[in-house]
Amino acid sequence: MSSEEFRRHGKALIDWIADYWDTVADRPILPDVNPGDIRAMLPDHAPEAPEPFEQVMADLDRVVLPGVTHWQSPGWFAYFPANASFPAILGELAAAGLAQQGMLWQTSPATTEIESAVLDWLVDLMGLPTSWKTSEGPGGGVLQMSASDSTHTAIAVARMGAAGRADPSSMVVYTSQQAHSSIEKGARVAGVGHVRSIECDEVYAMRPEALEAAIVADRADGLEPMLVSASIGTTGTTAVDPVGPIGEIAHRHGLWFHVDAAYAGSAMICAEFRHHLSGIELADSYTFNPHKWLLTNFDCSVFWVADRRTLIESLSILPPYLRNTASETGEVIDYRDWHVPLGRRFRALKLWFVLRSYGAEGLRDHIRRHVALAQQLTARVKESPVLHLVAPTTFGLVSFAHVDGPEATRALGATINASGWAHVTMSALDDEPYIRVSIGSTLTERRHVDRLWELIASSV
Amino acid sequence: MSSEEFRRHGKALIDWIADYWDTVADRPILPDVNPGDIRAMLPDHAPEAPEPFEQVMADLDRVVLPGVTHWQSPGWFAYFPANASFPAILGELAAAGLAQQGMLWQTSPATTEIESAVLDWLVDLMGLPTSWKTSEGPGGGVLQMSASDSTHTAIAVARMGAAGRADPSSMVVYTSQQAHSSIEKGARVAGVGHVRSIECDEVYAMRPEALEAAIVADRADGLEPMLVSASIGTTGTTAVDPVGPIGEIAHRHGLWFHVDAAYAGSAMICAEFRHHLSGIELADSYTFNPHKWLLTNFDCSVFWVADRRTLIESLSILPPYLRNTASETGEVIDYRDWHVPLGRRFRALKLWFVLRSYGAEGLRDHIRRHVALAQQLTARVKESPVLHLVAPTTFGLVSFAHVDGPEATRALGATINASGWAHVTMSALDDEPYIRVSIGSTLTERRHVDRLWELIASSV
Repeated sequence: MSSEEFRRHGKALIDWIADYWDTVADRPILPDVNPGDIRAMLPDHAPEAPEPFEQVMADLDRVVLPGVTHWQSPGWFAYFPANASFPAILGELAAAGLAQQGMLWQTSPATTEIESAVLDWLVDLMGLPTSWKTSEGPGGGVLQMSASDSTHTAIAVARMGAAGRADPSSMVVYTSQQAHSSIEKGARVAGVGHVRSIECDEVYAMRPEALEAAIVADRADGLEPMLVSASIGTTGTTAVDPVGPIGEIAHRHGLWFHVDAAYAGSAMICAEFRHHLSGIELADSYTFNPHKWLLTNFDCSVFWVADRRTLIESLSILPPYLRNTASETGEVIDYRDWHVPLGRRFRALKLWFVLRSYGAEGLRDHIRRHVALAQQLTARVKESPVLHLVAPTTFGLVSFAHVDGPEATRALGATINASGWAHVTMSALDDEPYIRVSIGSTLTERRHVDRLWELIASSV
Repeated sequence: MSSEEFRRHGKALIDWIADYWDTVADRPILPDVNPGDIRAMLPDHAPEAPEPFEQVMADLDRVVLPGVTHWQSPGWFAYFPANASFPAILGELAAAGLAQQGMLWQTSPATTEIESAVLDWLVDLMGLPTSWKTSEGPGGGVLQMSASDSTHTAIAVARMGAAGRADPSSMVVYTSQQAHSSIEKGARVAGVGHVRSIECDEVYAMRPEALEAAIVADRADGLEPMLVSASIGTTGTTAVDPVGPIGEIAHRHGLWFHVDAAYAGSAMICAEFRHHLSGIELADSYTFNPHKWLLTNFDCSVFWVADRRTLIESLSILPPYLRNTASETGEVIDYRDWHVPLGRRFRALKLWFVLRSYGAEGLRDHIRRHVALAQQLTARVKESPVLHLVAPTTFGLVSFAHVDGPEATRALGATINASGWAHVTMSALDDEPYIRVSIGSTLTERRHVDRLWELIASSV
């Protein structure tokens, strides 16, 4: 493809994407396909000769669109949002066009320095400890692919730090019964022997006293308590664990303190949510995903550590072909030493584009608008004689069930999803099903939540 | 940003990228910046109010371009190539525009099925074992971010499989003295106690007899030999370990056999390189990076396993909010169970675009053109009275030194890099420096290699 052809096809694709966003609200969110249907539309073998790009582009309509789940629909209330936005899409495009590989400062100084700068901006915007700013230290921030990667990295590094005291098979990671599966997965991948799911209180937040009792009991049993992961905004109900008390327990017992704010971390751009961060200065590591609720396309997970030397010393390996003058001065950041992968794209570009295009005030509006819609829906659920909240609404997620029990709840969820234009996730608490309405998609406005409520009200 | 504004800015950005590629050959490859220079061009804080997108775009010229290393320059002979191409850039753009999250089949059937199909295409295109095709099994392929991630996953899964026999601290991973640092890093992150760097022969390939001796000695010492990683195309000199003999040793002693073809794997699209794969049917896992030499933008690393059940059983964790009908039928692939992260982008789109836009024959031409240029340069080095090859040229990398010794070699490397338009990596073998000329960038043509030779010839 010549650069002239690229200009032509690229502009056509820009229009195609704009058309997609203009019409996504009208598309059934779940594709009407059975396993294997998409694959059956593809040939069994790669083409031997080049295909005209028009033909490739045409397959976006013929093959791809009928087979995708429309995460960007304004009726997307499932899981958590996977925010994308036009500025972020353009950031991805610019990053792809420049095709940088930022493993070392020297292999792309701008990739490294814009990333550090933008993550420092976020520290200030979100009221996080200023010692996490790379420009101040001793902490620092890095972009990872997902919170699962960030959490796994925290666990692996903490395990290495505890290696002198015990064998990984006797180490214990603590988190709440409501924590995300990535904690268990990260511990398993990192080879940590035990994961304790600590009891929660009536609003599904971890009970600090139960945590401390578990640590004491495990130590008495000869095990090695190693890391505790608190959640700010659990996946099930956006519960917030008491960060301060948990952090104090972690410190008192010498455990690494990780905080997983994958979803709710974006809300910290608004001061009124920062009371949930109380005690955050005790954290050894913290992760949140701008790709969930901060208008920045997946993948974009921020990982901050309170002491970057520990991270770097744990993950640095320097073969001769990676030696370079800049690294040897010690004045630069080589982000390859901050995570498992070596290569890295220019992911900070989209975050930089988003922060500048929306400005801090635009991002606060984005969060507050969704939280207000969630509060409005919560009020309606509370007023309903046949529905009941199963957990408080703290951010953009409303969790509720039918008073008639599991069957009625499942039927209501199925009715919503059968609408085509709205999609929710069913989950369970103590084996009781409930409906998660997660309000936070980029295009979701009041009218979409109103329409959802009309559907709910007319179905119960 | 409205969709109308997106159309306008997007098209301007497409032109900006085309202009960049049209002019990248004329830009000094290394930016003229000191640590902190780029950051100093940015404000200390995020803007409070939105900035016009024109201003954001203008900073691509003002801030970004002066600070990037031009990996896409035709004079890029450093490290390995990080191939990007117009079809791949458009694939990234389409993926960003659709903003899918393909953790489960159900959350994006097309993301899952196009990925499986395209990786099956590659199995056939590259003469790999057909049992690695997801459509045939019992193996299967998945896209990971980097070969480091693929290798770390292989080591972690192998460690879990060996957990019943020994403690990870007594497990041993074997690789050659010339293997990539990602093997050591992956083993360290996975908590494996020992990594043995096995002696190489005169062309820097692992000596199978030394491997077997090490396994036997370690077992006699009470250690648990666990995994061996062979390289097809080492980073230092593109040496090829004898896959068949190493695989037989691995099987005889019950070790997981991983093959790292991160760079050279792309060459397997040409039949004349497939003798290097001899014995590959013994591999338990295999990784190669289309983002290095197959015209597909970073990140795009393929990871194949011979038995996908082992992978899935090791990495699957199923919380209630991820349960769904499609997964429960067992008829679909949920790629979240094939790697550490949960979320995933639609990375297969760019690979699909590349395979179709170039066709198999276009991709073979791409590889053969670079290999022919490397052979030509190799012949010139051989004819030179003052240069000598330090390793055979097997793919696109030419490794040589000055006969006058380290100082002369370093001076020659510095002269090449001081040219601005050509960039090479210095490495070392047995503490002796040498110059790596890696020919494989998307835009590199005969005239660029000729010009490099003229520079070398006039500098020695």
